[in-house]
Amino acid sequence: MATNGKATNIVWHKSSVGKLHRQELLQQKGCVIWITGLSGSGKSTLACALCQALYSRGKLTYILDGDNVRHGLNRDLSFKAEDRAENIRRIGEVAKLFADAGLICIASVISPYRRDRDACRTLLPEGDFIEVFMDVPLQICESRDPKGLYKLARAGKIKGFTGIDDPYEPPLNCELVLPQKGNNYASPCEMAETVISFLEEKGFLQA
Amino acid sequence: MATNGKATNIVWHKSSVGKLHRQELLQQKGCVIWITGLSGSGKSTLACALCQALYSRGKLTYILDGDNVRHGLNRDLSFKAEDRAENIRRIGEVAKLFADAGLICIASVISPYRRDRDACRTLLPEGDFIEVFMDVPLQICESRDPKGLYKLARAGKIKGFTGIDDPYEPPLNCELVLPQKGNNYASPCEMAETVISFLEEKGFLQA
Repeated sequence: MATNGKATNIVWHKSSVGKLHRQELLQQKGCVIWITGLSGSGKSTLACALCQALYSRGKLTYILDGDNVRHGLNRDLSFKAEDRAENIRRIGEVAKLFADAGLICIASVISPYRRDRDACRTLLPEGDFIEVFMDVPLQICESRDPKGLYKLARAGKIKGFTGIDDPYEPPLNCELVLPQKGNNYASPCEMAETVISFLEEKGFLQA
Repeated sequence: MATNGKATNIVWHKSSVGKLHRQELLQQKGCVIWITGLSGSGKSTLACALCQALYSRGKLTYILDGDNVRHGLNRDLSFKAEDRAENIRRIGEVAKLFADAGLICIASVISPYRRDRDACRTLLPEGDFIEVFMDVPLQICESRDPKGLYKLARAGKIKGFTGIDDPYEPPLNCELVLPQKGNNYASPCEMAETVISFLEEKGFLQA
């Protein structure tokens, strides 16, 4: 019997089919690939390329996209500070469930604050949270401006926009920084292969 | 560009690997089996039996247990009315993501209010929400009292306990009622087989 946050009298139910069984079925290990970076840095593009490259290897992935989740689970949240933190917290909790289900869960979210990302990392077993930083200068992201959001932010029509009038805190100790040094023009597919090499090396692509 | 609830400027990102691809990989169809009923009616037991029986057929399932989710995603929620509704809403949204990922997602939650369950149903494509009602009389649930909660509720130590001082609204039109009529002593395994027959018949156990 446990007390958790605001709820008491909750008993933990353990199922006899566990993570190991699911991993055996899928021939992979569940984990979270957390892609962080500015708007326009290529997070979603990398997520898609990664998803496709892993699918072609017979691996099961699922993308949690910051924007998409705001259409459903997080539709009650705004962009004010505490709601942004709650947005990341929930994505982290859901990503944890997907990893527990045995999937390679790809979270693609700006997640500008180090504290929020680190909180998600602590939800997972050591090594199962793979933080990928899209290290693309603001200037380049702004010149791409795929959704026209920087323009709106510069015009003052969006307040608290990451990189413009809200900070982005780059990771201090993440698993991967992309594009890799000296390869500024890496394609999404090349970057996906870099992530896959990491997964392979760490044993995530087998049970 | 869309406005959703409290957030604006959110673009929907479509991935090239979709639900059909994942279903092909898994050789099953994603869906939600929503098990509803009083505390002690056997929801978690059925969920486990179902999970095991499907695993032995090579199918990938994931259980969202009302109690377990309160340790993570929903740890900020209490048992007051609006938090109970939000608890169910979030479980419904997460179940939807799992079904979209291609899994047979088994939600095991008291979910006493018809309105909340119906709201979850509408999140999913027609036919993909399979509501299973554990139709066990209060008297029997209370005599089992596996967690000692009825005793606490009767003693007034838990307020708003479903079946005691908070209503349970049975489904009017659910897909399955268990135990089936005339088989009051069905074992969890037998009940799991009833659910599996339903899944088989509806084509969920193939891509």
